[in-house]
Amino acid sequence: MPALVSVPLPGRAYDIHIGLAADELANALARTLDDRATSLHVLYDAAVQSHLPAVEAAAAPLGLPLTTAAVASGEPSKSLAEFGRQLQALAETRADRRGVVLALGGGVVGDLAGFVAASYLRGVDFVQLPTTLLAAVDSSVGGKTGINLPTGKNLVGAFHQPRGVLMSPAFFTTLPQREWVSGLAEVLKYGVIMDEPFFASLERDADRLLARDEAAVTRIIERSCQCKAEVVLADERETSGRRAILNYGHTFGHAYETLLGYGRLLHGEAIAVGMRHASRMAESLGLLDPSATARQRALIERFGLPTALPESLDPDDVLAAMMSDKKTEGGRLRLILPDRLGHVALHDDVSVAAVREVLAEVLAETRPWPG
Amino acid sequence: MPALVSVPLPGRAYDIHIGLAADELANALARTLDDRATSLHVLYDAAVQSHLPAVEAAAAPLGLPLTTAAVASGEPSKSLAEFGRQLQALAETRADRRGVVLALGGGVVGDLAGFVAASYLRGVDFVQLPTTLLAAVDSSVGGKTGINLPTGKNLVGAFHQPRGVLMSPAFFTTLPQREWVSGLAEVLKYGVIMDEPFFASLERDADRLLARDEAAVTRIIERSCQCKAEVVLADERETSGRRAILNYGHTFGHAYETLLGYGRLLHGEAIAVGMRHASRMAESLGLLDPSATARQRALIERFGLPTALPESLDPDDVLAAMMSDKKTEGGRLRLILPDRLGHVALHDDVSVAAVREVLAEVLAETRPWPG
Repeated sequence: MPALVSVPLPGRAYDIHIGLAADELANALARTLDDRATSLHVLYDAAVQSHLPAVEAAAAPLGLPLTTAAVASGEPSKSLAEFGRQLQALAETRADRRGVVLALGGGVVGDLAGFVAASYLRGVDFVQLPTTLLAAVDSSVGGKTGINLPTGKNLVGAFHQPRGVLMSPAFFTTLPQREWVSGLAEVLKYGVIMDEPFFASLERDADRLLARDEAAVTRIIERSCQCKAEVVLADERETSGRRAILNYGHTFGHAYETLLGYGRLLHGEAIAVGMRHASRMAESLGLLDPSATARQRALIERFGLPTALPESLDPDDVLAAMMSDKKTEGGRLRLILPDRLGHVALHDDVSVAAVREVLAEVLAETRPWPG
Repeated sequence: MPALVSVPLPGRAYDIHIGLAADELANALARTLDDRATSLHVLYDAAVQSHLPAVEAAAAPLGLPLTTAAVASGEPSKSLAEFGRQLQALAETRADRRGVVLALGGGVVGDLAGFVAASYLRGVDFVQLPTTLLAAVDSSVGGKTGINLPTGKNLVGAFHQPRGVLMSPAFFTTLPQREWVSGLAEVLKYGVIMDEPFFASLERDADRLLARDEAAVTRIIERSCQCKAEVVLADERETSGRRAILNYGHTFGHAYETLLGYGRLLHGEAIAVGMRHASRMAESLGLLDPSATARQRALIERFGLPTALPESLDPDDVLAAMMSDKKTEGGRLRLILPDRLGHVALHDDVSVAAVREVLAEVLAETRPWPG
């Protein structure tokens, strides 16, 4: 049974269809598009080209001209050069303001295609077809699109809400298990930041989730999207601070990705370590009972995610990387810390000394990792 | 006496300050910025570098770090490459989300800087300091920002409203007379599309406007911005069709710019010819009394603007260029035609044959022109 999550943003409400069977895609696509759509342009990750026929078949009944463009897998595609190439390719299809961009792939293609759609003719419709669990539970809600600069990640982009999101289990079949598991880190995060019963259900269903059981997977994607939608609706443009809770584990995790080099740890793996460290930070400040850190650690390990880095880093290097995160304001660290499983808060008053002390402790622990 | 036009867009209201004396700039800038602004970055047209000290002096009392970056004059700067360079330069200043981009220049710098501000960290504040009459009466209201692709002009961009617009007569002193006069074409347009008494005031004040009399200039900028704001408020994102009336003269004019090569005619000059031709089109369809075309023609000539092209073009080439304008939808020409001075309407049902006939007539008339 497919599930549906509605994201009722004023004026830009859209639906997320989850668990669509192959023969349900066409109908869901037709319901998603504006009646006046004039053309479709599919931007796809070259690694998931095998799903292109399914998308073309789903689009066929619409009778609209359809063009496609491949994007190389991986973070380097989120560049200004690729942004320019894809805009030019789209312009050459002569798409008008009712043209629609479809993103078939993971976060890289979604972020790039979303920014292309946001910018072409100052904004055309955009539909996401996620092929990774991370894109399904993270980028499909929130409207963040963007590319990287040599200076840093996601420094350029737009808030551009999709017209809709269509998820089919078939699209996940090309996803390597290590990336599947990496996506589970973000799922687990929703449990910690806002939903203890959801966290408990992940503990119960861990084996089924690792085996990609369709019903279990549909349920966790649905709940993850609901959680994220709730946060985004309260703070669409990241102005009130509410949206910051989604960064649980990310201030630490981004620093690790920067220092170890992107790709060494997958994003979800870095976030898993980051959550473990943020939780330990909360514990050391007396905010959190140690049993809550232990439960997180146990589930992270159950999923086969890391709870420590593959090599030891200098706490001062990590601190410097954390301070240069684009979410710092006025030079203060902004940490999202749990006070119980299911609730976190923003702390911008933790002393640098206290963070350094916890970093010295947790960074001493290392664990070999495939990356 | 400076004038103030408020643009009360919901959630993004801003003020346009017109006719600021040098010693009023600092105060107007302070009132414009968010209290929490952290840095200023001035993007300026290299040709108007002489105004940079005035901007720096106005910013000095704020005590904020200020950086500057030059942009070469002219349309080629509205490129993806320049967009990337300016984003990277801004990132290297380490501006955060409360950094502010100031655009000192005409339409090219405003469009480029506006898109940089719209995209950097998914949107930072943006203040316009127009140095051309065209930018003052056109780009300062509406929020359109953007760059060109090899395939066409303004194909990429964002709607991004400025935080405010600051106009000083001192900034216009570097503007060559031919460009000043070109800006008067857009001013005249507001009279035709929505305000006959304003048109009549332009007839009365023509000499003072050509001499850049400060009081007269402040009045026409104020009224032009009010007119444009009224239209934009009714149709911010160009969805209802109301905003299309601003394109009076532009479907013809853009085609002439494309076919003659950009820069041969200045934008306002092409629009002046375009208005004359659109008016003749309306007349030939029986929509408009010939006296209204005659009055437009007389004022266009009084300003020293062209009413005919410098060389003869093939009507079929012009038609093809008009059809490829990005504002066509479903392959229909969308013409803005006056039915009296002070009122225009959108016509998407004029036959191609009727347009060709009028083009054949008006294109036969040519007039040597400096471009």
